[in-house]
Amino acid sequence: MSGSAAYATLQDRFRRRALIGDALGILDWDQATTMPEGSADGRAEQIATLSVMRHELVVDPAVSDGIARVKQDFAAADTDAWHLGNLREMERAYLLAAAVPGDLVEAAARANAVCEVDWRRARAENDFASLLPALREVLNLVRQTADARAEALSLAPYDALLEEYEAGTRMARLDPLFDRLAEFLPAFLPQVLERQDARPAPVRPEGPFAIADQRALAAELMQALGFDFARGRLDISHHPFCGGATGDVRITTRYNESDFTESLMGVLHETGHALYESGLPDDWQFQPVGNALGMAIHESQSLLIEMQVSRSRPFLVFALPHMRAAFGGNGPGWEVDNLYRLYTRVAPGFIRVDADEVTYPLHIILRYRLEQALLSGDLDLADLPGAWNDGMRDLLGITPPDDRLGCLQDVHWPSGSFGYFPTYTLGAMAAAQFYRAAHGDMPGLEEEIAAGRLAPLVSWLRTHVHGQGSCRTADELLSRATGEPLNPEIFLAHLEARYLGNS
Amino acid sequence: MSGSAAYATLQDRFRRRALIGDALGILDWDQATTMPEGSADGRAEQIATLSVMRHELVVDPAVSDGIARVKQDFAAADTDAWHLGNLREMERAYLLAAAVPGDLVEAAARANAVCEVDWRRARAENDFASLLPALREVLNLVRQTADARAEALSLAPYDALLEEYEAGTRMARLDPLFDRLAEFLPAFLPQVLERQDARPAPVRPEGPFAIADQRALAAELMQALGFDFARGRLDISHHPFCGGATGDVRITTRYNESDFTESLMGVLHETGHALYESGLPDDWQFQPVGNALGMAIHESQSLLIEMQVSRSRPFLVFALPHMRAAFGGNGPGWEVDNLYRLYTRVAPGFIRVDADEVTYPLHIILRYRLEQALLSGDLDLADLPGAWNDGMRDLLGITPPDDRLGCLQDVHWPSGSFGYFPTYTLGAMAAAQFYRAAHGDMPGLEEEIAAGRLAPLVSWLRTHVHGQGSCRTADELLSRATGEPLNPEIFLAHLEARYLGNS
Repeated sequence: MSGSAAYATLQDRFRRRALIGDALGILDWDQATTMPEGSADGRAEQIATLSVMRHELVVDPAVSDGIARVKQDFAAADTDAWHLGNLREMERAYLLAAAVPGDLVEAAARANAVCEVDWRRARAENDFASLLPALREVLNLVRQTADARAEALSLAPYDALLEEYEAGTRMARLDPLFDRLAEFLPAFLPQVLERQDARPAPVRPEGPFAIADQRALAAELMQALGFDFARGRLDISHHPFCGGATGDVRITTRYNESDFTESLMGVLHETGHALYESGLPDDWQFQPVGNALGMAIHESQSLLIEMQVSRSRPFLVFALPHMRAAFGGNGPGWEVDNLYRLYTRVAPGFIRVDADEVTYPLHIILRYRLEQALLSGDLDLADLPGAWNDGMRDLLGITPPDDRLGCLQDVHWPSGSFGYFPTYTLGAMAAAQFYRAAHGDMPGLEEEIAAGRLAPLVSWLRTHVHGQGSCRTADELLSRATGEPLNPEIFLAHLEARYLGNS
Repeated sequence: MSGSAAYATLQDRFRRRALIGDALGILDWDQATTMPEGSADGRAEQIATLSVMRHELVVDPAVSDGIARVKQDFAAADTDAWHLGNLREMERAYLLAAAVPGDLVEAAARANAVCEVDWRRARAENDFASLLPALREVLNLVRQTADARAEALSLAPYDALLEEYEAGTRMARLDPLFDRLAEFLPAFLPQVLERQDARPAPVRPEGPFAIADQRALAAELMQALGFDFARGRLDISHHPFCGGATGDVRITTRYNESDFTESLMGVLHETGHALYESGLPDDWQFQPVGNALGMAIHESQSLLIEMQVSRSRPFLVFALPHMRAAFGGNGPGWEVDNLYRLYTRVAPGFIRVDADEVTYPLHIILRYRLEQALLSGDLDLADLPGAWNDGMRDLLGITPPDDRLGCLQDVHWPSGSFGYFPTYTLGAMAAAQFYRAAHGDMPGLEEEIAAGRLAPLVSWLRTHVHGQGSCRTADELLSRATGEPLNPEIFLAHLEARYLGNS
């Protein structure tokens, strides 16, 4: 087979793989939003079957042979960055997948699906013990997966897990970043709280807020950001997410009838993810290089929209009239100053997804430490609740009163995602860096946002991030868009400006 | 490979095939109920990819080799009916799939898709001539498919098409059945209408009927029939259907706010399909023998629940208080006698899907005759409108004023489904036969139904039909459950009792 024929064959194979992934995206969405509760076993079988078929497509020796042939071909020709990137992503997929035996992949997919259902019940009932058997099975299979990948990629087991979520992420890279935050934040936090206490406490607008009205407001702001409801949906699930398929991006939220502000910000966060997915390069649909980069860059897009934009004063200037109209809002609390204080309120709390951007990294550092200990066996799962609570006390100075507010709060571990949490804080740092660069390129950006003209910012993101797919590595992408690789000081400067500055 | 190892390998392969089918069931359901309209292209790609993968699993030479080996093994041993049935269904799937070359399958799928789009426009514009080119291409490829299958299965071409929808169905079997109906019904119909005219015309209860109330009523009656909402759903789609996956049976309806009666009966019809799907043998989940039998037996289950049970006086005795409570119904129309006359109203009409059970078979006989003539070439497509109208006049005594109410009404032929129509009337006959047998086994059945105790009937169906899967052929199933093979006189006796009897 010639090099170009081998490349075409690889492209067909990866196209099929992408479409199985899209089908899985719809099955996952359905499971979280729509599926009858008694149908979980069958769904687990469907997901396991498609997952193993997707896996088999990539682990075939024909893939590694083809990649070797195309590499030579590309090296001899003047190949552009997109094709090189496509081949690089094919090889990365092959290496990650071929490292893990098919029966292990299938067993893990099934165990994760079962455990996720158990977790929903266990969390509702605040019963960690009842989750243990399923979670042990998940962790056992995660360990086997990590070991297999570690050997194939010559990485430490935890690094081998990190690699799946964000290429190139290593403990050696994360440790100094997280050490810097762990050094900075505990000293910074009391200053923030002191300044906050010296100002008027924000008033929470008084409800009730009908779910239909909350949904309509969320949809309005999503559309202002460019979300296309002809190719996407907004629904309800227990744990908000952005999922679906190519050209069919589905985000979810959960509503609280006595407080619209949290769900709204959650929707805007997921909209940031959705804009990334819907802005990927059309020319590379269903090819690896047409995918979003890893989870850290994905999170940078959601946090850019949420933290950098939506919680900013200019955005609230734009959004407030919409909020007032949606609920007939009037009186105390319905002013920009108050909403800004509300949306930038800092308060150490138990729940990660409710955390402000100052304390959030501390939640991540806790999980980063615990999941390494669980993986290595230094921490037994039965001791997780205690270790969790100790960590919360050390890092945030508070102790969860129960496991629902502690180690049962997140779906990640029950669904087999170890090594994922760090990407949230990598994303927060990258978000600050992208936003600063966009602001540098468009000095009038904040006036545009205040006027509800969000298209220039989204267009900048399309050009510099979304439309780049996986053409380049995350570091290259950041450097080209912002002039430097990931720099935590930009994030810290953002925190200082917002929380100790004059605004 | 030993026979038993070969059988295990086949079972794994067919299990995977079934689970891909379940995933497709959810994707199809989502497309009809939930998917954003702009996402159709991506969904078509997902469905095409999974369909091809499912097809590839079956046409593999390893399947025919395995089947040959297992056949010898089973013949030498004392193999029970379930394993024999499983092997028979594997072979049938292989023969149907392998008979048709891949490029013909692909060309037909494309031609059907093109013609379906043309048909929507042609029907809206009442312009049969504009449909002709696309329909000629569809028919041409249907003929090639029929010829390919005919050769592989040693059948006549039309029989080879029938075989796909209901195994063992042959023209030689259908001709006398349909001749009997064509002889009986035209003489019977005027008597029915004469008697009907001598009685009070039914009154349609006056709305509006809120959709939420209609849905709640439908769900109540579904639950009374044993539908399990923990393993199934009721939603809205343009064309009602029963779909979903194993252990996750999803039916749909559409509501009319000015008339609840039609949607309700549609839901009960689909509930009959759903009860079949959810009552299939758990021990054979994901194996071919665990599937429902063909379309005729499936339709027998929906028509048993709709025509035999739900449109009967005893069921309406049970259902009326629920209807009254759902809508606060009171006054004219809200009596059993009236609803029974409404639900058994007979009126020759142009549209098949709106037809009553007396005239429905005449619509099917027309299509059965015409599609054979089209396939053989005895009837040219250009002459279809005239032949259709002549047939309507001969069989039903009415002439469609235009093709929209004539040969343009159904999607079946434009979408390449020739040989499907007969299963509707086979189902109606089988439904009457099953119901009479159940009544014979449970003489107090109608009193039970009137009291809302539907479990005995459903239990009878589970034992004699649903739980049998595809263990035996449809004829064997009917004979074991009712004492004789399909007998049209039982259906005719049902019509005589209901429409000319004393009730």
